[in-house]
Amino acid sequence: MTKRLLLDLTLATMEPGRAPYGLVEDAAVALEGGRVAWAGPRAGLPGEWRGMAAEGLDGRLVTPALVDCHTHLVFGGNRAREFEMRLEGASYEEIARAGGGIVSTVSATRAASEEALFQGALPRLDALLAEGVASVEIKSGYGLTVEDELKMLRVARRLGAARGVRVRTSWLAAHALPPEYKGRARDYLDEVVLPGMERGAAEGLIDAVDAFCEGIAFSVEETRRVFERARSLGLPVKLHAEQLSDLGGAALAAEFGALSADHLEYLSPAGIEAMAGAGTVAVLLPGAFYTLRERQAPPVAALREAGVPIALATDCNPGTSPLTSLLLTMNMGATLFRLTPEEALAGVTREAARALGLQGEIGTIAPGRRAELAVWNVEHPAELAYRIGFNPLHRLIKDEAA
Amino acid sequence: MTKRLLLDLTLATMEPGRAPYGLVEDAAVALEGGRVAWAGPRAGLPGEWRGMAAEGLDGRLVTPALVDCHTHLVFGGNRAREFEMRLEGASYEEIARAGGGIVSTVSATRAASEEALFQGALPRLDALLAEGVASVEIKSGYGLTVEDELKMLRVARRLGAARGVRVRTSWLAAHALPPEYKGRARDYLDEVVLPGMERGAAEGLIDAVDAFCEGIAFSVEETRRVFERARSLGLPVKLHAEQLSDLGGAALAAEFGALSADHLEYLSPAGIEAMAGAGTVAVLLPGAFYTLRERQAPPVAALREAGVPIALATDCNPGTSPLTSLLLTMNMGATLFRLTPEEALAGVTREAARALGLQGEIGTIAPGRRAELAVWNVEHPAELAYRIGFNPLHRLIKDEAA
Ligand SMILES: [Zn+2]
Ligand SMILES: [Zn+2]
Repeated sequence: MTKRLLLDLTLATMEPGRAPYGLVEDAAVALEGGRVAWAGPRAGLPGEWRGMAAEGLDGRLVTPALVDCHTHLVFGGNRAREFEMRLEGASYEEIARAGGGIVSTVSATRAASEEALFQGALPRLDALLAEGVASVEIKSGYGLTVEDELKMLRVARRLGAARGVRVRTSWLAAHALPPEYKGRARDYLDEVVLPGMERGAAEGLIDAVDAFCEGIAFSVEETRRVFERARSLGLPVKLHAEQLSDLGGAALAAEFGALSADHLEYLSPAGIEAMAGAGTVAVLLPGAFYTLRERQAPPVAALREAGVPIALATDCNPGTSPLTSLLLTMNMGATLFRLTPEEALAGVTREAARALGLQGEIGTIAPGRRAELAVWNVEHPAELAYRIGFNPLHRLIKDEAA
Repeated sequence: MTKRLLLDLTLATMEPGRAPYGLVEDAAVALEGGRVAWAGPRAGLPGEWRGMAAEGLDGRLVTPALVDCHTHLVFGGNRAREFEMRLEGASYEEIARAGGGIVSTVSATRAASEEALFQGALPRLDALLAEGVASVEIKSGYGLTVEDELKMLRVARRLGAARGVRVRTSWLAAHALPPEYKGRARDYLDEVVLPGMERGAAEGLIDAVDAFCEGIAFSVEETRRVFERARSLGLPVKLHAEQLSDLGGAALAAEFGALSADHLEYLSPAGIEAMAGAGTVAVLLPGAFYTLRERQAPPVAALREAGVPIALATDCNPGTSPLTSLLLTMNMGATLFRLTPEEALAGVTREAARALGLQGEIGTIAPGRRAELAVWNVEHPAELAYRIGFNPLHRLIKDEAA
């Protein structure tokens, strides 16, 4: 197996309990067979690695490759015109009459071929990858028929294959009730969400199951039915919860041992306690908070105190977060939600990996983890959250198994 | 002289009075001798241009190249550690004791060689240029000695030459009172701001004169002295005004026929009226508003109603706006200040050009204007403000005089 040795670098391993950042000055990283074999101070490099030809990184900072753990990257059309109408003073009713809102994205997604969806999503994926991202979660949720939801997840898989990047798919048919099911949420679950989940699982298209638990979407009871079917299929769950109001979705998610509960602006103390008990990750989405001009931030201090792991993600979607920069998401997490730069970096590495159930594989730099490293033109990791609209990535190092 | 004909494009000329965007579908643009010779619907192309070999743009959108009309792009060091300390709960006093604040940037800028400042600023300039910017204003203001202020402006000129981009310099020695002049603002003006301005003007280093009129910086009376000297030297003025409080700086700027008054969160009705009367551009800086988590937005509706031209700029600086994306600035202008996407685009083209006194040269696409065009992979110009952290630039077309 190929061996690689990296020298002349500052390392931020992001290993837990080694604050700040697991920083190691004058570090060495040894890679073998697609995994990290050793990482630490150069002076401690094991004898078997000494003397071999090394790649020097000119003192640059090395972190785990980034992870975007919540995106709706695949969709048809865009909502720029709706954005414009709103700023020109149009009411929600006028926008709806002009065909705006999520319904417009559903129509465009249904009308689009798999190839068109793929070509449309590729520049968005490439924007993420250009900032050192190597793993992306992608949800369905704009097809809202069995065929169109599966189409979205096939596109997600194809995106991963096309760019050699890890894609984790989520079945989010319970994202919105399509117009043809108006007033018939139960029928929609029985005819689309649940049977589609079974088919997608059989076809290997689904890595996790998600839902949108909110007054304008699905109730706790409906979400419970979705989660029960997921459990019977052996699929992990996650949830869009407490974004606009407190329905108790996070506690439901925790009851099902969810990987994550996401958004959480209106999360209650009981929800926090349930998440802490279950080890459910809080995925915060400042891009949506910013775009919707929300005032109530998620309870970061209480989450921190309760020991709930906190991740950050772009929530890339055409309506409420047309955001394709995970570095900017880090800055927003710090500026808008008062995360420290270290928490922001953990949120797009270690904790984002945990939100995808991949904490044993990626998100930190330690023996046995995948060899996926981001090399940055910065001196200190706090710079990654500090700058706004600037990409200091030098390169991504990915060492595939030989 | 070389002639170039561009076809198969949608044109947003941004000419005033031709809302929305001066849009022309199926347009043609003719360039000659570094200028726009003709622009309009392809069907109207004058006979002399018909039949010549053309460059097709595959239906892409063409806008004027972008203009960043307010930056502090040249500085030493960065303030990431201060950003981190603040988020970790440090008080302003603790940060000051640790050497933070503007004083730290002044120390780092004074200590840096011209070459080091140039190398440090280059990636920031390149980030702007990668988004279709072709003109950048750059201020002094972190040297605060005659020699160090002039050093900054020499670096600004060198940046322009190195990248073949238009740089307009501003003398901003009246940015902050350096520690060695504590309590002696008058002496600082007499010994640094005014004589340095004379020297810089004689050396051709100064295109305009700026000051920071604020309780924590310079008073209206002190600013008036700076402006009077500028007037005697034939230099146009501009002002950092009404960012944190209403001192009446904008009215003073208008009295001196200022190119622009910038920030303006606390601008009064009287200030608006004065600006409207003088034709002074309101340069809004949402990156600083966002970073400082301000609540009071500039009076956009009143500015609009009074017919004050509104520009947008990054305010790129290490303390309050470490922002190097003018596209993101457009999104912030729309999201945080409620500019329409059309106003946001005008704010980084036509009105930004006006804020630099260059309205006859750049900022719109019309006969006689410089041939500096941004070609975008978007269908509609509203997309430029709509997306967050995404760069759809296809390429910049610059036609130099032969
Ligand atoms: Zn979402
Ligand atoms: Zn400024």
